[in-house]
Amino acid sequence: MKHIINAQSGKAVHLKKGDILTVIDPQGMQVSDMVLFNARDVKEKLSSGKTLDFEASILLTTGNYLWSNRSNKMMKILEDTNGRNDFLLAPCSKETFEIMYNNPDDHPSCLANLTTNLEPYGIVQDDIPTAFNIFMNVQFTNTGKLSVLPPTSQAGDYVKFEAQMDVLVCLTACSAEDSNGGTFKPIHFKVEPQQ
Amino acid sequence: MKHIINAQSGKAVHLKKGDILTVIDPQGMQVSDMVLFNARDVKEKLSSGKTLDFEASILLTTGNYLWSNRSNKMMKILEDTNGRNDFLLAPCSKETFEIMYNNPDDHPSCLANLTTNLEPYGIVQDDIPTAFNIFMNVQFTNTGKLSVLPPTSQAGDYVKFEAQMDVLVCLTACSAEDSNGGTFKPIHFKVEPQQ
Repeated sequence: MKHIINAQSGKAVHLKKGDILTVIDPQGMQVSDMVLFNARDVKEKLSSGKTLDFEASILLTTGNYLWSNRSNKMMKILEDTNGRNDFLLAPCSKETFEIMYNNPDDHPSCLANLTTNLEPYGIVQDDIPTAFNIFMNVQFTNTGKLSVLPPTSQAGDYVKFEAQMDVLVCLTACSAEDSNGGTFKPIHFKVEPQQ
Repeated sequence: MKHIINAQSGKAVHLKKGDILTVIDPQGMQVSDMVLFNARDVKEKLSSGKTLDFEASILLTTGNYLWSNRSNKMMKILEDTNGRNDFLLAPCSKETFEIMYNNPDDHPSCLANLTTNLEPYGIVQDDIPTAFNIFMNVQFTNTGKLSVLPPTSQAGDYVKFEAQMDVLVCLTACSAEDSNGGTFKPIHFKVEPQQ
């Protein structure tokens, strides 16, 4: 069954260990922030620091695992048709728009969308970790300078994950102009049992 | 007053807004993992994702700020005589030694030392964020591959921070062989009021 995340919104879903999650960019050039929690104990959650450490890479794609703050594998990346994701930058928040975009007006954000969709599971905003930013195109120079470019993903590109534990996933269709070339588009995803 | 963190241990200290913290590598080639919490509400804490986002750099040195998960400035780096620190990798933990060093024996770790020293303040292990790893020499290639090299810090090198809020700091003298060239040494620090 295909789920649709409307532009500038988010959705949470439970996976069983072994389930396959496919996150699809249906129109191209859109980012989806993904956070993960152990479905049986939400204090265990996705960790960028542990993942970069164990995978020994800033860039993560097919064959890499996403790890928890308790050093357990949460997801394996089975396929990645685009090949560029980010695990450095935090989900965009209202402060992102105030500080980086000089936009103090009310603006949807990934952090707000993650919070709204995770609150029913007892997770509050302070507990939301750095997200795995699917399709996000963050470039770095050899001196470490970071820049956010439009995603290289084209319509139909997807990343396929295999759950390594029972996991609560929350995904967004990103709300930040820099992340998606100034367009706001939906994200689709599918959950299938292991075959 | 100079504080001494013995090899493979840690210490916590409170700073008032404006206080100056100087973290010193007294013998050279040693790493100190640092985590920060809002002293008035420890749910607000250091965030690598927010810091890399707002500072637009993987490498942080003089002039950069360390930011919280609530998008507030926690520390300003006033001076950095060595110039190489890491904010990508998680504090070493017992799993670091089991998984990356193939060492299942009991081994001190930064995560255990942070936990022990933060427990009196109501902070548990799951709540410890990715640390700012002072003097840690993590190199990355243009394809994002990471490697941990011995620190370039020499005896007496230091990093000086100015607290941007009342902050609870925890520091370690790192326990991981790769981070310090296989040596285990102390870390010194000083806290001084703003002048």
